[in-house]
Amino acid sequence: MTILNETHDPSRRSFVETANVAGCDFPIQNLPFGVFSTKDGGPRGGVAIGDMIVDMKAANAAGLFSAVAQDAAKAVAKPTLNELMAMKPAKLSALRRELSDLLRSDGLHRAEATKVLVPMRNAELMMPATIGGFTDFFTSIDHVRRATSVLRPDAPLPPAFKNLPMAYNGRASSIVASGGPVIRPHGQQGRKDGTSSFAATRMLDYELEVGIYVGEGNELGRPVPLHEARDRIFGLCLLNDWSARDIQRFESFPLGPFLGKCFATTVSPWIVTAEALAPFRVPARARDAGDPPLHDYLSDSTDQSEGGFDIALTASLQTAAMRAKGDAPAPISKTNLAALYWSCAQMVTHHASNGCNLQPGDLLGTGTLSGPTDESRACMLELTTGGKQPLVLPNGETRTWLEDGDEVVFHGRCNRDGAVPFGFGECRGLIAPAVTI
Amino acid sequence: MTILNETHDPSRRSFVETANVAGCDFPIQNLPFGVFSTKDGGPRGGVAIGDMIVDMKAANAAGLFSAVAQDAAKAVAKPTLNELMAMKPAKLSALRRELSDLLRSDGLHRAEATKVLVPMRNAELMMPATIGGFTDFFTSIDHVRRATSVLRPDAPLPPAFKNLPMAYNGRASSIVASGGPVIRPHGQQGRKDGTSSFAATRMLDYELEVGIYVGEGNELGRPVPLHEARDRIFGLCLLNDWSARDIQRFESFPLGPFLGKCFATTVSPWIVTAEALAPFRVPARARDAGDPPLHDYLSDSTDQSEGGFDIALTASLQTAAMRAKGDAPAPISKTNLAALYWSCAQMVTHHASNGCNLQPGDLLGTGTLSGPTDESRACMLELTTGGKQPLVLPNGETRTWLEDGDEVVFHGRCNRDGAVPFGFGECRGLIAPAVTI
Repeated sequence: MTILNETHDPSRRSFVETANVAGCDFPIQNLPFGVFSTKDGGPRGGVAIGDMIVDMKAANAAGLFSAVAQDAAKAVAKPTLNELMAMKPAKLSALRRELSDLLRSDGLHRAEATKVLVPMRNAELMMPATIGGFTDFFTSIDHVRRATSVLRPDAPLPPAFKNLPMAYNGRASSIVASGGPVIRPHGQQGRKDGTSSFAATRMLDYELEVGIYVGEGNELGRPVPLHEARDRIFGLCLLNDWSARDIQRFESFPLGPFLGKCFATTVSPWIVTAEALAPFRVPARARDAGDPPLHDYLSDSTDQSEGGFDIALTASLQTAAMRAKGDAPAPISKTNLAALYWSCAQMVTHHASNGCNLQPGDLLGTGTLSGPTDESRACMLELTTGGKQPLVLPNGETRTWLEDGDEVVFHGRCNRDGAVPFGFGECRGLIAPAVTI
Repeated sequence: MTILNETHDPSRRSFVETANVAGCDFPIQNLPFGVFSTKDGGPRGGVAIGDMIVDMKAANAAGLFSAVAQDAAKAVAKPTLNELMAMKPAKLSALRRELSDLLRSDGLHRAEATKVLVPMRNAELMMPATIGGFTDFFTSIDHVRRATSVLRPDAPLPPAFKNLPMAYNGRASSIVASGGPVIRPHGQQGRKDGTSSFAATRMLDYELEVGIYVGEGNELGRPVPLHEARDRIFGLCLLNDWSARDIQRFESFPLGPFLGKCFATTVSPWIVTAEALAPFRVPARARDAGDPPLHDYLSDSTDQSEGGFDIALTASLQTAAMRAKGDAPAPISKTNLAALYWSCAQMVTHHASNGCNLQPGDLLGTGTLSGPTDESRACMLELTTGGKQPLVLPNGETRTWLEDGDEVVFHGRCNRDGAVPFGFGECRGLIAPAVTI
């Protein structure tokens, strides 16, 4: 059962007035963590509030936290959040309460708090953690059905799909924060005669996903029971699993995706914590009639009743021509994290079920979050049926795949009756031309 | 063209007499790096010589290195070798010359050098680097042919195999040094009716591989030309890519191996440097008649003439019954790194060909190093044809897959006319029973 506390109180407002404006991603009920740098200071952690960042290094120096929250507050001030992520939920919760108290409109220390705010526009947002392991799941049944039928017309739903949350190891080194480089990759593309060409990809795609940061880790050889898995989730971000479909198609049998993916992965820099997301929990997706029985290790009643998250997600595309004319990015995918066939906790438990040690700061991608409707197709592969049916943009331009100069922007919003809506900030990436090699 | 220098001189001997004994893995011509700890000191780097370790922290404190070698010498003294690995070959070479000079029988500073030696039997050998990315290749054509036919009788050689060095991202967190835990993993095993069981694996296997540590890295978006790739290889180790075949078989279509592999990977703790291996370079394996043409980015004459390594590799098995009786491990696989279809440099260049950033300390596994002969089958899957033809051990025991209490030990030896032979030390792992979950 989800516990809510005063930090979720919808009536609470912040003295940072931009946090109270309808549509703001960072009201006082959110308080996501990130890492930033400024002209006058290197990477350190912060908390987003309205259009400002609480500089946690400065906040610590100013003595704004009590003994109860100090360990966590100090961990946020570091250049990566890994140490914070390793902490037990009670410590994180103590910090959240003090942050909320510090930033509320009727807080006692408003003057001192004001001094440690940095305008977000003056900050560079960076990777929030050192990611030891990046694992990408494949847990939307609608994506799997559509993508499988496009890439391999003869292939059925993968046999394991309904038995376990499928995944593969991704590449951590090429994960960049929103706005980081996305360079069109070279790679081999198969020909019918068994040979291949080596060229810049012609089938560049985005994949709209959510990233799950692992909190407390588990020792090698010690699985994580499902009832503990929820507390191992530190928080969520937006994740664009850029894909070069021609490279992916040629290389990936039987070892799975490799160079078709690992040229770049973009994440939103703010991590929305599990505690902030508590009001947006929903039942996990019901299994279909006739599905194979759920294994005990992947089943418990809490996960079934509130293992999902209601998070609306959009991908928008802005071409170079649109940018030149000042046209806003056009929404091309509208979906929801609740579409997942497997819950985030099930992913954690399955990943550790063989004894694999997850570590604080590990990142799990959900896989492309497509839903059943046409508008919820969450990558070009689905939207254009593998490049066969061009997508028509509002200005009349068409796209089968992404072109140089295209920028893809993701947003995520939590919005439920009785709660203050909030968001994830942006996850954006602009396609740069291939490098000549 | 491989450059040899006085550190490769076969007549050079060490004042550490155990280094001069025939069959020793660590004569003065080897000088591999590793990380160790002792009762009276935490993790720090060292160099193996005979049955001793040069404690590089102590050696630096004693002022045994000149200004030319000092940067590298200090980097070895750290608790991980990543900083050393990032250095240019010239710096590494300068250190190697001074180490060789320091340890030779007629060296000037024998008394001082003796004081910084630690007996290997008193040291715990540890992971030598923080591995950011682990990538496992699939580059022995004999392994691929046999393994493919066992796991999927209807599958041809993967279409990309002869066009590119195939690989998948592995899991870095569960890599352990020789002797580290290998616990029989649980996982899902498919049934014919589309359901699955969840149980401890019944098809536990080893895979005899060599690991390649990446030295200097490349920036995201900047591929590594083949002529530079050789200098990005810091050194080699032995690598056991433990595999649970039933888990692997069920989960791996279409995303490739995941939990069937990432419960444990064992590496030998000593890294034999690229410079030490120079005398054992051989031409890369010739391509077969009718193979598709080699892409330009994967081809240069130096790689063809000396891109291979002649390293003899063995896997031996000691069961609990053998251990109880004092029987030595029985050799079950005898193969050679020269069996590779793709060279180590080709693996590096292909990996970075999409702009993926490799980083110092990244580990690339070659894939199972099976050769064409029966004795060169380098995993149980091949040796027992997927469990159908039991392996008979010298004491009459049989094995289709590994059992609890079995210990698998790898050795590697370099041995060519005109060079002093040397080895890699051990890579061993003892199978512990499954944990009840």
